[in-house]
Amino acid sequence: MSIFNEGLQVVNVGLPLIVEGVPSGQVTQLDWRPPAFGDAEVARLALALDSPETDEANANAIGIVQRVRPQLTRVRPASEVVPGIADGRMLLHAGPPIEWERMCGPMRGALIGATLFENWAETPEEAESLLDSGQIKVEPCHHHGAVGPMAGVLAPSMPVFVVTDPSDGRFAFASLNEGLGKVLRFGAYDEEVISRLVWMRDILGPILDRTLQSFGSIDITSLIGQALSMGDEGHNRNVAATSLLTRRLAPTIAALEPSSDAIAVLNFLAGNDHFALNISMASAKLSMDAALGIDKSTLVTAMARNGVEFGLRVAGTGEQWFTTAVGPADGLFFPGYGPEDANPDLGDSAITETMGLGGFAMAASPAITQFVGGTPSDAIAATRSMRRITLGPHPAYPLPPMNFTGSPSGIDVLKVLDTGVLPLINTGIAHKTAGIGQIGAGIVTAPPEVFLSAARALAKARGIG
Amino acid sequence: MSIFNEGLQVVNVGLPLIVEGVPSGQVTQLDWRPPAFGDAEVARLALALDSPETDEANANAIGIVQRVRPQLTRVRPASEVVPGIADGRMLLHAGPPIEWERMCGPMRGALIGATLFENWAETPEEAESLLDSGQIKVEPCHHHGAVGPMAGVLAPSMPVFVVTDPSDGRFAFASLNEGLGKVLRFGAYDEEVISRLVWMRDILGPILDRTLQSFGSIDITSLIGQALSMGDEGHNRNVAATSLLTRRLAPTIAALEPSSDAIAVLNFLAGNDHFALNISMASAKLSMDAALGIDKSTLVTAMARNGVEFGLRVAGTGEQWFTTAVGPADGLFFPGYGPEDANPDLGDSAITETMGLGGFAMAASPAITQFVGGTPSDAIAATRSMRRITLGPHPAYPLPPMNFTGSPSGIDVLKVLDTGVLPLINTGIAHKTAGIGQIGAGIVTAPPEVFLSAARALAKARGIG
Repeated sequence: MSIFNEGLQVVNVGLPLIVEGVPSGQVTQLDWRPPAFGDAEVARLALALDSPETDEANANAIGIVQRVRPQLTRVRPASEVVPGIADGRMLLHAGPPIEWERMCGPMRGALIGATLFENWAETPEEAESLLDSGQIKVEPCHHHGAVGPMAGVLAPSMPVFVVTDPSDGRFAFASLNEGLGKVLRFGAYDEEVISRLVWMRDILGPILDRTLQSFGSIDITSLIGQALSMGDEGHNRNVAATSLLTRRLAPTIAALEPSSDAIAVLNFLAGNDHFALNISMASAKLSMDAALGIDKSTLVTAMARNGVEFGLRVAGTGEQWFTTAVGPADGLFFPGYGPEDANPDLGDSAITETMGLGGFAMAASPAITQFVGGTPSDAIAATRSMRRITLGPHPAYPLPPMNFTGSPSGIDVLKVLDTGVLPLINTGIAHKTAGIGQIGAGIVTAPPEVFLSAARALAKARGIG
Repeated sequence: MSIFNEGLQVVNVGLPLIVEGVPSGQVTQLDWRPPAFGDAEVARLALALDSPETDEANANAIGIVQRVRPQLTRVRPASEVVPGIADGRMLLHAGPPIEWERMCGPMRGALIGATLFENWAETPEEAESLLDSGQIKVEPCHHHGAVGPMAGVLAPSMPVFVVTDPSDGRFAFASLNEGLGKVLRFGAYDEEVISRLVWMRDILGPILDRTLQSFGSIDITSLIGQALSMGDEGHNRNVAATSLLTRRLAPTIAALEPSSDAIAVLNFLAGNDHFALNISMASAKLSMDAALGIDKSTLVTAMARNGVEFGLRVAGTGEQWFTTAVGPADGLFFPGYGPEDANPDLGDSAITETMGLGGFAMAASPAITQFVGGTPSDAIAATRSMRRITLGPHPAYPLPPMNFTGSPSGIDVLKVLDTGVLPLINTGIAHKTAGIGQIGAGIVTAPPEVFLSAARALAKARGIG
């Protein structure tokens, strides 16, 4: 009788559409989505994969990842430290594997620039035909223990951050951040860009290396942990980590000769708020690779974009990539640009989200909403929603606005399929034409297809079918 | 009839005690306190003062204060720039006026140290008897356009930050922060302390001055605004402002000769997370003094503690101090110390709260709760409660976690009396014995008595009685 007398109270687990017309105060809308994005076959596989063995493998995997304490020890030429990069003419790029012919504008531009930088060609036309001819091998950074933002192009003569885990001697590498404006990673390759790369090779890299040799190594986890309490999220906002690092290293840099070089390096660090991004990326790469190949684990070990496809790697399937077409980011555009100018999403920088930073640590960074859109409470909601798809908070990355609970870390393919919640990636937006550069920033979600593919492969590997 | 059938719903405007026993779900407790802290005479005066003329004066005063854009231009010896400090033997101290005989331990220690530093005495005993004899004048920093944290002792040979408002040519000054540990401002005066002061006088001050001469002046409002988006609150947490400033100035410092001095300065800046505090204080002093003497305005222009008394200044009563005895801060103590070791609250640093920083900007600084106690939501609640007693948000100090609304700024004596809400001050805690140093940090409220005294004086000045 009471439902007639006391009015209707509706609990809806489906589309909000279905309760349209019911006053909103009477509706409790559950955030439920069909498992496996509605793919019944994968839903069945996911259910079969969800076993105590998987839980054990994942607990092991996340424990290993979270215990890595990456140390920044050196800045060396890639040719000297990045495995395989000096075998013949080779250039590395962001994201999963892709052939030169299918690459997007910014990545092609960056490869042309890197070819000029290496003096393999004298003109952009010559560089392009050299790349057309296949005489320069192009392979993903990720296949060489490295990561790079946006186009992510790494050439043998470029200096790289050398990050190591002293407990097992593993290494990861990342290029040095060029700053904003006309830069190689957005596909620019004019004189200004190449000269800067030459300066970075000849001055910045060697000065930073001598600095680290003299100062000692930098504990990156601790640097980023402190930066999270200062409004960074370790992907799109890096001003705190950059400022802390510069302040700490400045006395050592200032002590190096010639002083004109030391001053130029300090000026460069003072002018580049994103300098620490690539360090954060190398650190995340080293940490996540620790779980590569852990049998039965459904932990995501890499998310990366090449501007055409999104790629996913999972611990239990090792070095295999699950890929699908990628779209452009939705976000805030710089004046004069809009979605029609945007390149599809690009770069290895989503390794930070894979680790539990970036979009996952948004709560730490209310100020970033002015850059990527949304409000500070959206930022907190974003972090909260990432808890639903991760294996556990990262103990070294407490988020002050969330009462110091750790940033949600370690994406579980099965949790993504179960909840329908997709990883949030806090990304820069590149112009689709090479060389124009960054035109905005925003949030993207990883595409559902790669999680479906990953589940199929994980099931196959375990004879579930 | 329904109140008998549907149960009791209580709205309580008095002490929570009175509704004890009523289930808490049935009680709405209003945060109401009797006006003027229960002083009926002052409540009547406050009511009379609450007029359109007062509103107009306050709107004028807060507008003037918020439009000041303090510039850090130089670092000069106090004797050269601080008015009156070089007239005979004079030392300045924190808080409202107090005679040597009544001073607390840390302030006496700091004055002994400053006497040794100035070479007016050779031993602490000699310094003490010189101070006993009255041959060294002691006056408040505030009376000389200056501010100093904790004991706040300023001697003529010390270097000071010179902060100016280019629009009217006014100046404010603050000592340079010595760092943590054994330092003069906590009353220590041994060899280590005096040597550091000598180094600051001979090396740090001149190098910083040459840096500013070469780099140009620093817009402090913009520096602090950015630091607020990086977890500083501009009083007890200054790591962001210090890091940003150091990173910006490092190239210029590194270019100065001799390089050994430049390196020593960069090392000092790298090791002192509170370096920017004194700059924030001088900036707040310059801004608040712009309202000094604005007729009829009930805006608080200074809050300062000398370790014995708390002092308040109000725009409409000019340079008059309203004082009352001050207690120790309640907060988190460093291991081995407790409330029984704490000196009563001390220092001019509450000028930052007077401006709308520190305790008023707590929301910007969730991480500070680990230093002063409480939780991040307490920090937001603190900022929110300060809205009730302030004249308006500071447009240059947006707080990201509060959706970028400005920090509550400009304490109104009448609002304090009306709401019974007292200004929150985020403070360091000094040991009561000279020289032991900081033993904790916490939150204090300004004492109610000074607001009662201020209201009486404001009323008297306007012939209300």
